[in-house]
Amino acid sequence: MTSKPIITFLSDYGLADDFVGVCHAVVAGICPSAVVIDLSHGVPRGEVRAGALMLAGALPYLPVGVHLAVVDPGVGSERRAVAVRLADGRVLVGPDNGLLSPAAERAGGVLEAVDIGRSRFALQPVSATFHGRDIFAPVAARIAAGAGLAEVGSAVDPTGLAGLELTRARLEDRVLVAHAVYVDAFGNIQLDTSELALALGQSVRLATADGVSARARYGRTFVDVAAGELLVYEDSYGQLAVAVNQGNAAERLGLGVGDELRISLPDKLRISLP
Amino acid sequence: MTSKPIITFLSDYGLADDFVGVCHAVVAGICPSAVVIDLSHGVPRGEVRAGALMLAGALPYLPVGVHLAVVDPGVGSERRAVAVRLADGRVLVGPDNGLLSPAAERAGGVLEAVDIGRSRFALQPVSATFHGRDIFAPVAARIAAGAGLAEVGSAVDPTGLAGLELTRARLEDRVLVAHAVYVDAFGNIQLDTSELALALGQSVRLATADGVSARARYGRTFVDVAAGELLVYEDSYGQLAVAVNQGNAAERLGLGVGDELRISLPDKLRISLP
Amino acid sequence: MTSKPIITFLSDYGLADDFVGVCHAVVAGICPSAVVIDLSHGVPRGEVRAGALMLAGALPYLPVGVHLAVVDPGVGSERRAVAVRLADGRVLVGPDNGLLSPAAERAGGVLEAVDIGRSRFALQPVSATFHGRDIFAPVAARIAAGAGLAEVGSAVDPTGLAGLELTRARLEDRVLVAHAVYVDAFGNIQLDTSELALALGQSVRLATADGVSARARYGRTFVDVAAGELLVYEDSYGQLAVAVNQGNAAERLGLGVGDELRISLPDKLRISLP
Repeated sequence: MTSKPIITFLSDYGLADDFVGVCHAVVAGICPSAVVIDLSHGVPRGEVRAGALMLAGALPYLPVGVHLAVVDPGVGSERRAVAVRLADGRVLVGPDNGLLSPAAERAGGVLEAVDIGRSRFALQPVSATFHGRDIFAPVAARIAAGAGLAEVGSAVDPTGLAGLELTRARLEDRVLVAHAVYVDAFGNIQLDTSELALALGQSVRLATADGVSARARYGRTFVDVAAGELLVYEDSYGQLAVAVNQGNAAERLGLGVGDELRISLPDKLRISLP
Repeated sequence: MTSKPIITFLSDYGLADDFVGVCHAVVAGICPSAVVIDLSHGVPRGEVRAGALMLAGALPYLPVGVHLAVVDPGVGSERRAVAVRLADGRVLVGPDNGLLSPAAERAGGVLEAVDIGRSRFALQPVSATFHGRDIFAPVAARIAAGAGLAEVGSAVDPTGLAGLELTRARLEDRVLVAHAVYVDAFGNIQLDTSELALALGQSVRLATADGVSARARYGRTFVDVAAGELLVYEDSYGQLAVAVNQGNAAERLGLGVGDELRISLPDKLRISLP
Repeated sequence: MTSKPIITFLSDYGLADDFVGVCHAVVAGICPSAVVIDLSHGVPRGEVRAGALMLAGALPYLPVGVHLAVVDPGVGSERRAVAVRLADGRVLVGPDNGLLSPAAERAGGVLEAVDIGRSRFALQPVSATFHGRDIFAPVAARIAAGAGLAEVGSAVDPTGLAGLELTRARLEDRVLVAHAVYVDAFGNIQLDTSELALALGQSVRLATADGVSARARYGRTFVDVAAGELLVYEDSYGQLAVAVNQGNAAERLGLGVGDELRISLPDKLRISLP
């Protein structure tokens, strides 16, 4: 390989402790030439779905490489640890708890899968609570260093990856019933539907299941509404989203991941969901 | 170039989401040899001035390279996106909203400037809300990879960079009226004036606009006062600053960025502000 | 050297400010080939013991290199700044306040030590409050670039490194009196004793000095108890620890670092402390 191998790394470890740093160190010891890109370690603790959607959303922007992902509330239990090779050449490494499936689908599906729970490249002894350090990071590093999947684990059915239950937006008469799938640190809320194609400046009514109701305006970017006003827009991943210019939409609406948001559409708008 | 190109990266993106990680990935895809140094992503959201002062203050410690900076509350609006070449060989890339001007001045001014809002190196389609990923990071990476400014954007007046309104300390009789320009995570308050040249151990009175009043002692370092005591000192960037040894001065004084702090000087002290 | 030199970096600087980024930049300017691994910058402010134990615990997972550590509440005071070469080839760089001693002991002791407080490689002028930038990072980078210890400072007694007061678990009849030595971001509590060797599923009583009392079950990993239940387990560093599955044990028990935790042992268990 002429250029250096890339490993991207996503987890819910946070940066307060040394979990992420130790995984970096383990990789550096095994594959010193690898470039490790921290995609994020701020996935909320144990939130497999949030991690899965973040990985799948970011994938088109990541160089082809090894994509290490660890959001693993069942660490040490029966859930499998896997490495999977995708149709576009990427390799995903992580727990088989749904975390990897949206990314795998997005990249064209799984060509080859191995169970790495007893990989000969795991650090010994394997702890029961830190597989990021003991299994996932060392296996990812071996693959980055050139090992084939057959070397790092035992073959399993490539169609058997654990899936993930996802919400789906739906139409009820003139109301788009969507759900929050991601809330970023600014309080911007990503919904489970893509562009509404409202006219710029058009006003819609938002309503939550908790009875919070508010008007928002459709715009392209934050400053299309006044400071403190609600904005509905197509976010940078092409999904419908809600923000407050210089404010926090999730706090304003009292909305968290998974919560329903009803958007009453103007009479003249036609919409069809995929 | 014999050594690897350096890109430093400052933003208000925080590390909870994947914004920073995705920008790293975009850079790695375009210029794999670049070393990206995260200067900080903890600039308070949308605080252009805080980001601008952080960048300018850190500049003398940064290797000459491409300095990517994104604090961009007006993303997607009319504000320009620019890349500027400085007298000392550095290139700054970011929004033209004042964020870059203190660093540019500090490095001897701008020799060449281009508008990169429609750069042919932008990722397509360019989103309206994430120019860090779609414009700034790819252009910075191209420049690091050797592209000239004329290749990445269209020439604009190098003297036309947006400026920044900064506070200035002033003397009123025997009172130095200063302002908080930066509060770090420890609550240490940097003021908008350089060394007072008080004698070590000398005591001064501090007063805020909110009526908080306290005595502080002039020292070199935190442990020059007892734990919990207020200290006035020359900070590591040569600015006058206020701290509490093992405590939080900003909380103690109720002071935030932009707030006024009045320092009553001892009778015998002579002082002149530049 | 065929592979790139490794510098690991631990501090209590946090990531909100540019302290860590500026140290990275200083290293890159002096030793561009160095790979800097951020072990963690989330050590609680000024908590030398927490930083010392984190460094010592992580050490076996770190490639041999230069290990830069800065938790330095006495910066600018009389405390020494040192670089020490260990029996296993590692070099530690940091303040001589106890931060380095557990790691040094773990790696077989100190072979050579130098005082770097007036190193000719320090950045001039040396500030009184940011020795990470002005002394520790540049000296670490010089060593990574190949400088011998004798070049970066003046020789001092290698047996004279400042020690650290550590708690020790003890047995009182059938009660193991342990102490919290580390609490991670998930609220998992590491204790100052290694494996209890209870039987899986065995129940013990926990009691704090504040009168909080609770039952916990001994298990291998979090999901060995129901969500919200207390677990006693051997953590990934081989220490006895307490967690709540999908919860926060430190909050549940009201326990912080240094606090005592009494574990009442089942009658049949035999235990001996080292």
